[in-house]
Order: sequence, then structure tokens, then C-alpha cells
Amino acid sequence: MTNSPLLEKLIQQFNRFPGIGRKTAQRLAWHLISGEKETALEFAAAIEETVSGFTTCRQCLMLAESDPCPICSDTGRDDKLLCVVETTSEIFLIENMNEYHGRYFVLGHLLSPLEGFGVNDLHLKELENLIKKHKPAEIILALKPSAEGEATIHFISEMLKDKNLELTRLSTGIPFGGELEYTSTLTLSNAWKRRYRV
Amino acid sequence: MTNSPLLEKLIQQFNRFPGIGRKTAQRLAWHLISGEKETALEFAAAIEETVSGFTTCRQCLMLAESDPCPICSDTGRDDKLLCVVETTSEIFLIENMNEYHGRYFVLGHLLSPLEGFGVNDLHLKELENLIKKHKPAEIILALKPSAEGEATIHFISEMLKDKNLELTRLSTGIPFGGELEYTSTLTLSNAWKRRYRV
Repeated sequence: MTNSPLLEKLIQQFNRFPGIGRKTAQRLAWHLISGEKETALEFAAAIEETVSGFTTCRQCLMLAESDPCPICSDTGRDDKLLCVVETTSEIFLIENMNEYHGRYFVLGHLLSPLEGFGVNDLHLKELENLIKKHKPAEIILALKPSAEGEATIHFISEMLKDKNLELTRLSTGIPFGGELEYTSTLTLSNAWKRRYRV
Repeated sequence: MTNSPLLEKLIQQFNRFPGIGRKTAQRLAWHLISGEKETALEFAAAIEETVSGFTTCRQCLMLAESDPCPICSDTGRDDKLLCVVETTSEIFLIENMNEYHGRYFVLGHLLSPLEGFGVNDLHLKELENLIKKHKPAEIILALKPSAEGEATIHFISEMLKDKNLELTRLSTGIPFGGELEYTSTLTLSNAWKRRYRV
């Protein structure tokens, strides 16, 4: 007896998720077919419903249940602030802080020659349209401090340098709760240079 | 802006899998709605297809694409050997060893008072039916060496002690508390060869 082709197909589907290896994919697939059939069908239905219910906001490019998204159509938002993120999931993180009430723009990707993402993948035309529309005073580049993030921050700041905008980025340093021992030399060195008065 | 109820529903669905916490569930859900819609719908379709395509074999109680399952309907199998496993996924592990050509029986659960699984959950009537049908000379109790596995081995061996059957169990080369699933093929194969009388 060889593995069922049906099961194999489902295992491969699980295996496509980032961070889900072959063993975990097998475990998850077995969990689904071993449990209540209705539970698994509910799961499939939730995927279909959620995926079908999401669209891309044509103004800020975030994934949302409507176009324009709830943030773009909210007139109570602060037009003077625009936060640029890599993906929509970061918007939820920032919203959960409950401190920021400006607007957002989703780049979709960071510049990454190795992964094949170049300047044309950043949707910069849409970003310029949004800047024209809301005329923000400050743009916060809330991108991760990796090689790709740094390259993207550099590129966008060059692109916008003559627009009379304040361009900011998130502070880099040692995370709260982090151990100096487990901090990379790069992070530690950066935190050292950026030390501030207590 | 609060979390989307649609997204929240999908996150909760992922969160129901064993070993998938809230954070991972969020990551997987975002992966699905951020990627190609078709890819996600293919995933949902694979779940539906696989789950709908599996049924329980009424003879050995394994999950299979047909009832009777390919093993029960295979006349070339050795009727003198019957292997008792906890779940169907162990059958695939044992088949992959390519050393055993007897029959199987799936208990469904081990005895576990803490989890509420008692003697009635072991489908012992079906096991007795299968024994009557094939009249095996040896029954291999291929259950994990945990408290629940030991209790189940003990219970079944007491139940069958007057039936003139050789009852064997896997060698305890497999560490206690370990899962068959995470045992290397070499360890499993070795434990299989060194099985001993209960």
C-alpha cells in the first residue's frame, strides 16, 4: 500500500505554507481527515469565505473587505500622517497599538534582488497618488530593519527628498525583554551608536 | 479599526489544529489571504476533496478511500498476522517499512481516563470480529509505550489471553513519551524485529 494520492495532495497543500515542513504538513493533514468531517468542511468553507471576502483597496493597496478600505473611507483619519508598511498584516499590528490615527500605504514587497522584487513591484505610482491626495506632512517608513528594508527605505527617501516632507523610520535597537547576550553584533552596535539620555 | 471578523474566523480555524498557536494561526491566515486567491481556493478544494474522499473501513476501521479498504480487500495479505494500531497514520508508517504484510486493526483511541476514553471507545467488538474472520496466529500490539499505551496493551492482552494467540508488542527501544510519528524508520524497524511476548 502506498500513500493515498488524495492525502498526498492535501499534505502538499499544507507544505506550501511558510514554516510548515513535510512532517508538520502530514500531521495537519491527518488531523483533518481523522477528525469530524464537518469540522474540516467548516475550515474549507472559512478559507473560501475569507479569501473571497477580501479585496485590495485601490488607494492604499491594503487587503480589506471593501474598496475603498475602512481606513481610506474614514474622514476622521489624520491626513497629515502617512505610514508606509510592507504588508497589510503590519497595519493590524500598528492599529492594535491604538496610538496612530493617520493613513497607510502598503508597498506589497521590499526591494529584494535575490527574490526578484525590484522597483516596479513597490507600486510607487499609487504611493505618489496617495501623497498628492492627502498631502501628508510626515511619512513614516515602518519597514523592517533588514538589508531589504534598508534598501527600500533608502530608495523611497531618495525618491521623495524634494517633496518637502518629513520622512521618518522606526527606531532601531534592542527589543524590550531582549537579552544583550542574544542580540546580534549589528543590532548591539546600532543601539550603541543610537544611545540616548535617560 | 478592529480585526476583520472574516479574518478572525479563519485564524480561529487554524488555531484549532494541534500545535498551532494563535500567532502561527495569524501568520498562516495572512499567508492565505495575501497570496493568489486561486492558490487558497485550491487548498480549500483539496481539503473538501480529501475529507470527502475518505471513509472508515468497517472491517479494520482504518481511514481509507474505499470500504472495505485496500488492505482488507487484498487477498494476498498474511491472515496469520494482525497488527493493532491507535490510528490510521501508523499504518502508513508501518507500510513504509516494507517488512510487514499482515492485516491491521485501528483502535481509534488508547485507554485514557483523563481524556475520557474508556473501554467502549476501543471498538473491541470489531477487533473480535476481525480475529474470528482471519484467525491470526499472532497479534502485534503496535501501540506507543506511554501510560495509555501500556494500559491498553494490558487490557487487550487480558481480554485475549484465553484465545490461544501469540500476543506481541513492539520493543521498547522507542523512548517513553515519544510518538511513533517522530521515530526514525531505523528505530521503528528495529523495534518491530525485537517485538516480545506480553
